[in-house]
Amino acid sequence: MSKYVFGVDVGGTTVKLGLFTLEGELLDKWEIPTRSENSGIHILPDVAESILKKAEEKKIEKSDIAGAGIGVPGPVDSEGAVHCAVNLGWGEFNVEKELSKMTGIPAKAGNDANVAALGEMWKGGGKGHKSLVAVTLGTGIGGGIIIDGKLLSGFTGAGGEIGHLHIMDNEPDKCGCGNHGCLEQYGSATGVVMLAERHLAKTGKPSMLRGRELSAKAVFDAVKCGDEMAIEIAEQFGEILGKGLAVIASIVNPEVFVIGGGVSKAGTVLFDYIRPAFDRYVFKGSRSTEFVLAMLGNDAGIYGAAKLVMDHSVYI
Amino acid sequence: MSKYVFGVDVGGTTVKLGLFTLEGELLDKWEIPTRSENSGIHILPDVAESILKKAEEKKIEKSDIAGAGIGVPGPVDSEGAVHCAVNLGWGEFNVEKELSKMTGIPAKAGNDANVAALGEMWKGGGKGHKSLVAVTLGTGIGGGIIIDGKLLSGFTGAGGEIGHLHIMDNEPDKCGCGNHGCLEQYGSATGVVMLAERHLAKTGKPSMLRGRELSAKAVFDAVKCGDEMAIEIAEQFGEILGKGLAVIASIVNPEVFVIGGGVSKAGTVLFDYIRPAFDRYVFKGSRSTEFVLAMLGNDAGIYGAAKLVMDHSVYI
Repeated sequence: MSKYVFGVDVGGTTVKLGLFTLEGELLDKWEIPTRSENSGIHILPDVAESILKKAEEKKIEKSDIAGAGIGVPGPVDSEGAVHCAVNLGWGEFNVEKELSKMTGIPAKAGNDANVAALGEMWKGGGKGHKSLVAVTLGTGIGGGIIIDGKLLSGFTGAGGEIGHLHIMDNEPDKCGCGNHGCLEQYGSATGVVMLAERHLAKTGKPSMLRGRELSAKAVFDAVKCGDEMAIEIAEQFGEILGKGLAVIASIVNPEVFVIGGGVSKAGTVLFDYIRPAFDRYVFKGSRSTEFVLAMLGNDAGIYGAAKLVMDHSVYI
Repeated sequence: MSKYVFGVDVGGTTVKLGLFTLEGELLDKWEIPTRSENSGIHILPDVAESILKKAEEKKIEKSDIAGAGIGVPGPVDSEGAVHCAVNLGWGEFNVEKELSKMTGIPAKAGNDANVAALGEMWKGGGKGHKSLVAVTLGTGIGGGIIIDGKLLSGFTGAGGEIGHLHIMDNEPDKCGCGNHGCLEQYGSATGVVMLAERHLAKTGKPSMLRGRELSAKAVFDAVKCGDEMAIEIAEQFGEILGKGLAVIASIVNPEVFVIGGGVSKAGTVLFDYIRPAFDRYVFKGSRSTEFVLAMLGNDAGIYGAAKLVMDHSVYI
């Protein structure tokens, strides 16, 4: 009977890896660089080598390893194939099959935001819930939808791409995806900075934000100090993000939203700004949806990747 | 081994009933009035009596009946309980248990729009697909989300309530749900009439719609005749509905939208107006979603209700 599982989270600059017991205890974690040159051909071999080296170092037999789960930044279909992971330079190939061939252990692949949602459900802010939407407010907005304990991967692997739901008409700036007015243009860390820049430029009001380097943290720190302009920026952020989450809740009707990513470091003060708009826009049958903070931080991905391997049927 | 199944669709004024073989052949269908007086206490007994009478008339033994499925207008939780079906006057009780007790056969209950989606997947426009969103453009907008062949009922039974996703800011009129700017205020049959009224009042342009009784049918008939104003109304309808469906696709990533309800009688001309906006607003990973017309019309509910009984695990 196997005793260990590896969780791998492939990011644009580093790959995070974790060694877990089947109960979800994190025994060791480490990082390797993501070598995305040459269409990313080194990435999977590097991951495989790192896993096998760790197993050797810890004197773990292959027969004691349940497998390796891997989260990648891009759509992953239910067969474990990626079709285009731009940040890694990857084209079309089957991650599960390749990684399994290289390591000699079973492999399971998923989209990074979906996998992080699974991690938060297993050992993080979503523990105890089987119906949740994880929202990662980072550079962009990532999303993972879990229904009855399983990930909604979507027909082409693009399920839960909530960062790109259209929320604002007449937006002059383009989103990274090519559209205009996507949720992540306002609700991400980058979005908060953009809202702050526009707000500061529009009025001459004094603010402790003036002359500082703008960041989501700076804005919410200023909110906590009672800075009037920062509060206006937070209100605008909360209005748009709250509306977006209301739209999601009206469709999916989850039990809870698990809010993570850099912006969520501001803490529950976020909910003071998101919740009023959410309550105003959501369908009344979904008004009971709760908001909780994610708890695993940057480790959500490795936890979720490990969990990927352990669930026989993780996708719906 | 059972050979028959009953499908029941409870509407605000009539209850539709159908007798099916397990293969989905509709052997007989009929209607009884919905007696919603006295908090709707007669409705379920009327349904039970009608089922038993039909079985007797057809000389069908109880042991040959797999059960009765029933769709009701309101949220139904995974235990088969309704919490408030306003149109029927119902408060809180377990429809499955009550109907089963009255008939002596197994019963399964679901929300009417969700159940209709199941019907369209089984024998209608969604046949052959396991990942779809059914959109019923009637007096309001109903929705049913099917993932891997199963209904997304939502944590409180409000999954797929796509008619009430917020799509328009600054809407002065109130939706039936109490909010402002819900999708069904524009994309339903009632919504098309509202858009037409506003458009006709705004400009003095000639149109064959002037002086006529307005309806979704009249508008799309005029579109087919090349009426300029009707085309503008259809464009506005398509812009808003297409945007709403794009939001849904960006979150759920279905294989196909199955469009039904009264408005869909206009035919595929609808897609000419919905699709351009959909393509403009949807996340690129979900752009391949197809649009098809529903095929079962008012029978979708009885088909889906019958199917409810036959699937061991119909909800996710």
